[in-house]
Amino acid sequence: MEPSIKQLDYLFSPRSVAVIGASGGFGKWGFGVFNSILKYKSDFEVYPVNPGAKEILGVKAYKGVMDIPGKVDFAVIVIPPEYVPSAMRDCASKGVKVVLVITAGFREIGEDGARLETEFTQIAKQAGIRVAGPNCNGHFNTGSSLFTLGFGEVKPGPLSLISQSGNFGGFIIGQGMDRGVGFSKYVSSGNEADLTIEDYIEYLGEDPETKIICAYVEGFKDGRRFLNLAREITKKKPIIIMKVGRSREGANAAMSHTGSLSGSAVIHDAALKQTGVIQVRKVDEMLDVASALIRQPLPRGRRVGIVTGGGGFGVVATDACRNFDLEIPPLSEETINGLNRWMPARWSHANPVDMAGDPYGSIPTLGGMLKSDDVDAVLAVSCLGFTSQSLEDFPPEIREGFEKYQKQMTEGELTMMDGLIERVDRYRKPLIIASVSGRERSKAIAKLADNDIYTYRSPEDGARVMAYLADYSDYLSKF
Amino acid sequence: MEPSIKQLDYLFSPRSVAVIGASGGFGKWGFGVFNSILKYKSDFEVYPVNPGAKEILGVKAYKGVMDIPGKVDFAVIVIPPEYVPSAMRDCASKGVKVVLVITAGFREIGEDGARLETEFTQIAKQAGIRVAGPNCNGHFNTGSSLFTLGFGEVKPGPLSLISQSGNFGGFIIGQGMDRGVGFSKYVSSGNEADLTIEDYIEYLGEDPETKIICAYVEGFKDGRRFLNLAREITKKKPIIIMKVGRSREGANAAMSHTGSLSGSAVIHDAALKQTGVIQVRKVDEMLDVASALIRQPLPRGRRVGIVTGGGGFGVVATDACRNFDLEIPPLSEETINGLNRWMPARWSHANPVDMAGDPYGSIPTLGGMLKSDDVDAVLAVSCLGFTSQSLEDFPPEIREGFEKYQKQMTEGELTMMDGLIERVDRYRKPLIIASVSGRERSKAIAKLADNDIYTYRSPEDGARVMAYLADYSDYLSKF
Repeated sequence: MEPSIKQLDYLFSPRSVAVIGASGGFGKWGFGVFNSILKYKSDFEVYPVNPGAKEILGVKAYKGVMDIPGKVDFAVIVIPPEYVPSAMRDCASKGVKVVLVITAGFREIGEDGARLETEFTQIAKQAGIRVAGPNCNGHFNTGSSLFTLGFGEVKPGPLSLISQSGNFGGFIIGQGMDRGVGFSKYVSSGNEADLTIEDYIEYLGEDPETKIICAYVEGFKDGRRFLNLAREITKKKPIIIMKVGRSREGANAAMSHTGSLSGSAVIHDAALKQTGVIQVRKVDEMLDVASALIRQPLPRGRRVGIVTGGGGFGVVATDACRNFDLEIPPLSEETINGLNRWMPARWSHANPVDMAGDPYGSIPTLGGMLKSDDVDAVLAVSCLGFTSQSLEDFPPEIREGFEKYQKQMTEGELTMMDGLIERVDRYRKPLIIASVSGRERSKAIAKLADNDIYTYRSPEDGARVMAYLADYSDYLSKF
Repeated sequence: MEPSIKQLDYLFSPRSVAVIGASGGFGKWGFGVFNSILKYKSDFEVYPVNPGAKEILGVKAYKGVMDIPGKVDFAVIVIPPEYVPSAMRDCASKGVKVVLVITAGFREIGEDGARLETEFTQIAKQAGIRVAGPNCNGHFNTGSSLFTLGFGEVKPGPLSLISQSGNFGGFIIGQGMDRGVGFSKYVSSGNEADLTIEDYIEYLGEDPETKIICAYVEGFKDGRRFLNLAREITKKKPIIIMKVGRSREGANAAMSHTGSLSGSAVIHDAALKQTGVIQVRKVDEMLDVASALIRQPLPRGRRVGIVTGGGGFGVVATDACRNFDLEIPPLSEETINGLNRWMPARWSHANPVDMAGDPYGSIPTLGGMLKSDDVDAVLAVSCLGFTSQSLEDFPPEIREGFEKYQKQMTEGELTMMDGLIERVDRYRKPLIIASVSGRERSKAIAKLADNDIYTYRSPEDGARVMAYLADYSDYLSKF
């Protein structure tokens, strides 16, 4: 009998955790994992298991899992591979529900490793234990404050990530944190001796804390099951997949990495598309789309209104939108008349809307475009005019004036952002903000991110995000 | 008679500059330009011209250019359009060599503007004055410390940029500065009433301070001339072009922006390719390639050795390289034996080289791969193991140990970077370093950038840079 996927609740939200191989020795995996759990833990119990220690980081240690007085829902194993079967036997006797094996040195190193992996997997199966890993870098759940991934603190949020590469999973989380995006759950699936990416996706599909599922995939063990799951889940929440091993050489590299059969179990792009999965090619794309899906409404069509602070941005944004089959419709007289009210006379009077001037006009302009029936979405390119000059640029006699101006500008920007957020909510259309350089990472940008409105590097990146939203919306409109 | 292109020396390195329309009024163009020139200027003379002021920012002001006692090589005009012809007449009388007209409101606004533009252009032509602009945002030359672009300080370096959009040019410079890349010259060509992008490219082709020419192009006035120039210049230095107005809608937007005929004067991708021009689609691509060309040697072929800190990165990098027709050759026994000396037993023994462990092994590994006859270039993906954990992640009793460890790691990294730089120079092969997240922007990365070895966001970005280098190398090998 296949145990229910609900058993994964014990992986992500256990009431008690044993760390088999916990260590006080700085630099060891058993230290990193135990320290991370201990440091961030909420009200669950954590028990270090190490036959050679009385206490670890101030917590009473146990010789074996069997010696722990209370129940143990979940155990993490970070001991050398040859001891794993015996530790698994102890977990079986103790009634542990889920075991995460971080240890490497199994199927991925050859026959001897594969034999050990089969051995502990059999023990677990007979005892009804579900196993995550082996050969992985851990997991986390910000909701229950459980971190076996020694990564430092992760901001809670609606994204969950499954990765068939631990290193690459860590890279994705790091890049997400750089953008200020928050995560709910992460798991590195490793060799998938028992639990597979298909299992995790099924679980996250039901998980109320996960609003968006992201996955780095080298290969599916059961492609059919994945497609069936994806078809149902994408009706409720987006699934974003980065499928690698696309080239023959890449597939070979995947084979020797996690033993994934990217080639034989290939899920063709067309098949993925029919399930509504959003397929991305790069980590930046994954996080661009994911961050947009957090709060931006889906567009009802492909008609994009472009608003820019300068003509060049309009040309680049137009090319980029057309490249993704987005439409740049002409503006109706009504929309043009509406914009005339606050635009300087020299504005472009067309789509792209070149504001040709005062950034303070950008909020009513963006609002006017969001409101217009001519478009389904708005792409704002370098039109918010964030202050980027520094006091040092001015002679002493001007500095006081500039300081006052800068303060007004900063306050003005923050007020502008309130207006922007309010309009996105009011008109229920996506507003994608692009071309924000590092120099412009102001308080205003941070305020937008705090409100889950993220900004994108270039017009091209913004247009691509818009296209993904339009594709997904189009897919959902069929149901 | 067409005046020699050498006349542009007066645009970039004049001995004296008049600012017609200089102002002490904060927020005005005439203030921004004059303040910027004054603040950064080297030993050239600068004269503010403004009939209503006795002095501006502490410098004696003149009623007209004619009233300036010494010679004037170069004048910047920032007065309303209707006064420009008269100011140009004064410049002609004064013997000014080059005039930059920043003022907008000419050909781009319609017939009246076009008439004014023709008027001042004719005056200039008769006087042998070359004109930059109008309707642009200025220029700079870090070599002569002349900045009409009020942008703050720009790091000197080997890149020069010509942009047919002022706003977009500023965006490119901002993004370059974020990466720590330095610039030699910049010019925003505006309406190109006289000087065109073809002229600037001819000049920069001869300019010893410019090692790499970058250009944002909406359309060429004389495509044939550009192709002939490019064919000669690319033999000496790379030209990187971002050509926009690719879609019909984008071409229309370009037409109404700078009046550029992207459509009719189309330079086809194939034609550009035959001149050795590196054609990019995004600003990130432009700066990725440009920064690599600063110091990295060109590869002699397309065979790439991939070195990674984890298997997932190897799969992604392999896919990305194959996507750009780069080869991932097998490793010879000699190379494998060489790597065996310092690699842990579990390393991949194949290309991609998965180091599967200690980042301290990365320098001899990268050196070994650069030295190997099996490959023409090395792509290093997330294998340098920069420290990213913070002290806060550890309990008090561990912190002292971690602090010592972190200090050693940081010092170790800096020493490693010395080794890396030395090996790139020794083996004369490109080493492209990718997958460096914001969390890892350490002293080591800064040290590399200070030595003109830049790092790239993702394996895909790294592979694309590598492909551009290989394409350019392949092109040059025909001569």
